[in-house]
Amino acid sequence: MSKEKETFNVPKEKRFSEWYNRIIREADLIDDRYNVKGFIVHKPWSMIAFKEIYRLYEEALERRGHKPVLFPTVIPEENLRKEEEHLEGFRAEVFWITHAADRRLDKRLALRPTSETAFYQMYALWIRSFADLPLKLYQSCTVFRYETKATKPLLRGREFLWIEAHDAFPSQEEAMNQVKEDMEIAEEVLHGKLGIPFIFFQRPQWDKFKGAVNTYAADCLMPDGNLNQIASTHYLGENFARAFGIQFLDRDGKRKYVHQTCYGPGIWRIMAALISIHGDDNGLIFPFSIAPVQVVIVPIPATDNETSEKVKALCLEVASRLKENKLRVEVDLSEKTPGAKYYYWEMRGVPLRIEIGSLEVKGGYITLFRRDTRTRRRVPLEQIEAEVEKEGKAILENLKERAERWLLQSFREAKNLDDLKKALEDRPSIVKAPFCSIDMDGKACAERIREAAGAEVRGVRYGIEEKPESDASCIVCGRKAKVFVYVAMAY
Amino acid sequence: MSKEKETFNVPKEKRFSEWYNRIIREADLIDDRYNVKGFIVHKPWSMIAFKEIYRLYEEALERRGHKPVLFPTVIPEENLRKEEEHLEGFRAEVFWITHAADRRLDKRLALRPTSETAFYQMYALWIRSFADLPLKLYQSCTVFRYETKATKPLLRGREFLWIEAHDAFPSQEEAMNQVKEDMEIAEEVLHGKLGIPFIFFQRPQWDKFKGAVNTYAADCLMPDGNLNQIASTHYLGENFARAFGIQFLDRDGKRKYVHQTCYGPGIWRIMAALISIHGDDNGLIFPFSIAPVQVVIVPIPATDNETSEKVKALCLEVASRLKENKLRVEVDLSEKTPGAKYYYWEMRGVPLRIEIGSLEVKGGYITLFRRDTRTRRRVPLEQIEAEVEKEGKAILENLKERAERWLLQSFREAKNLDDLKKALEDRPSIVKAPFCSIDMDGKACAERIREAAGAEVRGVRYGIEEKPESDASCIVCGRKAKVFVYVAMAY
Repeated sequence: MSKEKETFNVPKEKRFSEWYNRIIREADLIDDRYNVKGFIVHKPWSMIAFKEIYRLYEEALERRGHKPVLFPTVIPEENLRKEEEHLEGFRAEVFWITHAADRRLDKRLALRPTSETAFYQMYALWIRSFADLPLKLYQSCTVFRYETKATKPLLRGREFLWIEAHDAFPSQEEAMNQVKEDMEIAEEVLHGKLGIPFIFFQRPQWDKFKGAVNTYAADCLMPDGNLNQIASTHYLGENFARAFGIQFLDRDGKRKYVHQTCYGPGIWRIMAALISIHGDDNGLIFPFSIAPVQVVIVPIPATDNETSEKVKALCLEVASRLKENKLRVEVDLSEKTPGAKYYYWEMRGVPLRIEIGSLEVKGGYITLFRRDTRTRRRVPLEQIEAEVEKEGKAILENLKERAERWLLQSFREAKNLDDLKKALEDRPSIVKAPFCSIDMDGKACAERIREAAGAEVRGVRYGIEEKPESDASCIVCGRKAKVFVYVAMAY
Repeated sequence: MSKEKETFNVPKEKRFSEWYNRIIREADLIDDRYNVKGFIVHKPWSMIAFKEIYRLYEEALERRGHKPVLFPTVIPEENLRKEEEHLEGFRAEVFWITHAADRRLDKRLALRPTSETAFYQMYALWIRSFADLPLKLYQSCTVFRYETKATKPLLRGREFLWIEAHDAFPSQEEAMNQVKEDMEIAEEVLHGKLGIPFIFFQRPQWDKFKGAVNTYAADCLMPDGNLNQIASTHYLGENFARAFGIQFLDRDGKRKYVHQTCYGPGIWRIMAALISIHGDDNGLIFPFSIAPVQVVIVPIPATDNETSEKVKALCLEVASRLKENKLRVEVDLSEKTPGAKYYYWEMRGVPLRIEIGSLEVKGGYITLFRRDTRTRRRVPLEQIEAEVEKEGKAILENLKERAERWLLQSFREAKNLDDLKKALEDRPSIVKAPFCSIDMDGKACAERIREAAGAEVRGVRYGIEEKPESDASCIVCGRKAKVFVYVAMAY
């Protein structure tokens, strides 16, 4: 469709911002020339992968008892007003529908920035007794936020793709178990199937979701040293249940408020993470399972026509065999040179390439090229399906290991503010430091860190017990350090 | 979640409106108590089936070269204004976003009522030469229309689910081939996989999509005798290409405008069609492939505990075997009686039920019940998977045949206006009649029919040559009849 350059070579780690801005356009993932600021077009090269990521996540949610729903895109203003802190949090970000045709609407409608206030009025109707609990529903959709910060495709936009799961339980204990399950799902899908390692934090009180008791979030590390929040889960306590009147009759005959959680895997940011973390100086590298094209087949023309025809026939035969195995396969029969085709598909991140020329036809094998290791090997014709499957898994394992190694290398420790500043200069770095508190009384210290080092206190690790020595003191205020926090740059 | 009544018995054909209004709520497909008129909540029982319908349709589109994209939900007013007739058609139906946070936006944004004017400004950027054609893209999404007629869930709403495909070609011939392909896709998915027979019409000029040269549409017949448009495809000619400047450099070195088509399978109305056409007096009957639960397993408790445990164990074993085959299976272990469970799952349209009691445990078989024929038979344990698959297919074939028979019975012919009125009283009926013209000069006659019989001229059949005798005259004006049209009630 558009004329791609034949070569792409940008040092990803040294010039990440340039790398990112170029590759999302040159690999044809998105087009941001749409004439409304912050709204982009998702092109097939991203959309096919998005559909696969949704499929993986939805399958993991459904296997754990979540069911799909779809709520309206619009939320009346009165709903948003029911939970005060929540309204406060989103007031500056809401798009308002005020008219239809030539008429002014009776009540303004918000484009959903998130759907708590749409779901929970219905939960109040649906939930009657303990037998209706737990209630675990999710929807896959886009949401809308009037961002005033600079927008960046797949990282910050005014309309973006996500999933939101809204769960209700009879007790706090069961709700907190859901937080653990949400973390498990992230582990299974993001780390296990997409090869993105992450750290699961409990966020400081000053950085939680508006309306929540606590926020827990998965952060991955981007090549420029910024943490990227790719999923978050919020324990809402009874806050929204009280605002919306969601009560159930318990086994003991008493009416009680439900305890709620909501979970938001950020599908956009997951895409941004996987292209940034797995890609290299020559472009994208997709994990095999979600690649828009999983195997590209490139014919190497022979000097005589007869052999060229045989080459082409074998290419088509191999393609049709792989398609029968439900793989996404493309045979590149364009008039470009084989070298130009290699560059093109490597830049776009196709994980496996099959090269077939006269030698392959004569020898009864194909040449299999791996995008991640840039290595070639011969595979006998009869083993193609098995070897493609094996290499597909091997690519994921390799990407995952590389990403883990890189994340682990970035951990630093700091005993005082100077340490911290130095550690943060040596990017990418995530710095562990003793800290007074992630309750509101620690907020001033976090602000000092932001001013001194331009970095954020991302919270304490969740699911891993880490306690400072009893005589340790906060690196900022010197008070007793109750926790270890992690400090890093963040989007 | 909600307390379903144990029995559902409404004569579908006699009291269709009541049947429809009750079943969509009692079978828990939707909830229309959301506090914005015309916007509904899609509950899991419909959403799981919607996801399967999307999957079938998307697969059929992709197999024919369409690729998925996702465009913004919002369209600037200036885009809508580019094609005058199109703007005129949708002006009265658009929701407008005018504010964000406390600010008035520089330009009003429409919630997409359909996305021609979003797609085609990008097509003008993407299409440069004949090598970029054909361009065939689709998106699955919701669209928004400020309907002033009474809304009805899944039939007419202010936000509804659909697919829109937007295709561009170098010539009219190729565009018209796409119209045929769109009809093929409808045949494959709607008729072949969902068992919904339909008639494909070319619409009269006064009933076409605003901005199109011609509109073609698939109508199915609902139990109350109304035609329901479930998919439509529009040949746009060069109209939008000229408005948006979509030109390509052809092989002959000349710059030309593309010829376009757009295709809109109405996913909402497809759901309305299949529940209405396949359902019976006792509730829903889902085709096997898209049923939210494909097989429900009901244990029949024995008089002694030990046998009851064996019954339950066998239920769970059978469920896990079927789940391994990727089927959606539910074991109903609730405390209701078997009879109450039967009613409940029949009302909700589960196509196959497996009953397991002490006889089954002893005999090494299960009892398999078909929802459509309400027949039972024994299946040996080792044949369960194969028989479930076979019966799943048989159910679809039976539903399809029943629906076809019913549609065929409804065809009538009329030679004059009195005939027509009589034929239309004997509902359901689709009346074929000689007619002057479906160009604008036939509009007055169509209006006479509407006044006289409350019915619509739906157009001429597309893909089937039907010509009145040379001396035939229009049933309204008496001029020479150029075409046979079909007249029926319609939503």
